[in-house]
Amino acid sequence: MGRTSDARERILTAARTLMLSRGYSALGVAEICAAAGVPKGSFYYFFASKEELALAVVEEHWAGQRAEWTRALAGDVPPLRRLRRLYESTEAELRAGRESCGTVTGCLLGNLALELSTRTESVRERLREIFDEQVALVAETVAEARARGEVTVADTGAAARALVAQLEGRVLFAKLYDDPGRLDALWADSLALLGAEESQGAV
Amino acid sequence: MGRTSDARERILTAARTLMLSRGYSALGVAEICAAAGVPKGSFYYFFASKEELALAVVEEHWAGQRAEWTRALAGDVPPLRRLRRLYESTEAELRAGRESCGTVTGCLLGNLALELSTRTESVRERLREIFDEQVALVAETVAEARARGEVTVADTGAAARALVAQLEGRVLFAKLYDDPGRLDALWADSLALLGAEESQGAV
Repeated sequence: MGRTSDARERILTAARTLMLSRGYSALGVAEICAAAGVPKGSFYYFFASKEELALAVVEEHWAGQRAEWTRALAGDVPPLRRLRRLYESTEAELRAGRESCGTVTGCLLGNLALELSTRTESVRERLREIFDEQVALVAETVAEARARGEVTVADTGAAARALVAQLEGRVLFAKLYDDPGRLDALWADSLALLGAEESQGAV
Repeated sequence: MGRTSDARERILTAARTLMLSRGYSALGVAEICAAAGVPKGSFYYFFASKEELALAVVEEHWAGQRAEWTRALAGDVPPLRRLRRLYESTEAELRAGRESCGTVTGCLLGNLALELSTRTESVRERLREIFDEQVALVAETVAEARARGEVTVADTGAAARALVAQLEGRVLFAKLYDDPGRLDALWADSLALLGAEESQGAV
């Protein structure tokens, strides 16, 4: 069982790395198995199809990212400071990814949203739920900031959707221009989208 | 020559439609030729590789889109009204695409930016130039609005990058949720990002 679970984990890790750098369609099962160092038979022992693997990769990726988002947005400092911490952590992740892959690979969930939405309903469905969850996490923080009179938005859900869209748009350009610094402006963008003062959420 | 140029055009049209709905990696040359109704030999008469085809598709797509952006941003009405017209035209295009393809296929350039940036340097390079051009077109309009005292941004280039990122982010979610209405909020987002009054750019 020890070796078996290890093989599943190695397939997931290899698939995640390959999907980040090359996308989903360009990958074959044989290549994933070679990168993971497991025989092809093992793959089909754990996953019925490449689609099922993609769902598992998304699940594992979001589990890690959700933990990071929850940590960043946890209530030990004022709400806007926490939002800023989320952006800092996202930019740090892009920088770390660039160190290890040699290029900004972007947001796995955003990449797959554009690559697979029109083709794989199960992945699209799961990505919708995940982005809904991201919006809910941000909306909660925005609601706290509004209760403190720090932001002026009328609809915290709508404001959170604007912030998450801005984040994904900025990450797209960070990837295209291979420059994590494209996220530097995210904080100013967000203050503007929230109708907040420049002085809010200062470090 | 008449028939020959027609074949090239048919390959480009088929490739553009297929790339919008399924991405680049999932496509094969044989499939493109079948959709275009041309023999495979014709393909290699016009294009040395699938990469070269992708560049030609990007070129043709941007030529059409640039004409649309230039028309929308042309100076017959106040600048913010023109910016709004650009969003309306983008949303109308997503709606029309949904009518013909059955689903929102999003922005071909944004799709390819995420799918190919880390893999195909020639496409990445061209997409960078195109998005730089989009930012420049928007920045010009923002500068006009600033000269009229309608927006308060300090750096029009930075403001334009924020607007184009917001546009790409919103289009990503329009595709994921198969809902062109996700662009409805773009106008309010943009007024906030520009530090403009809600009353600006009204229809």
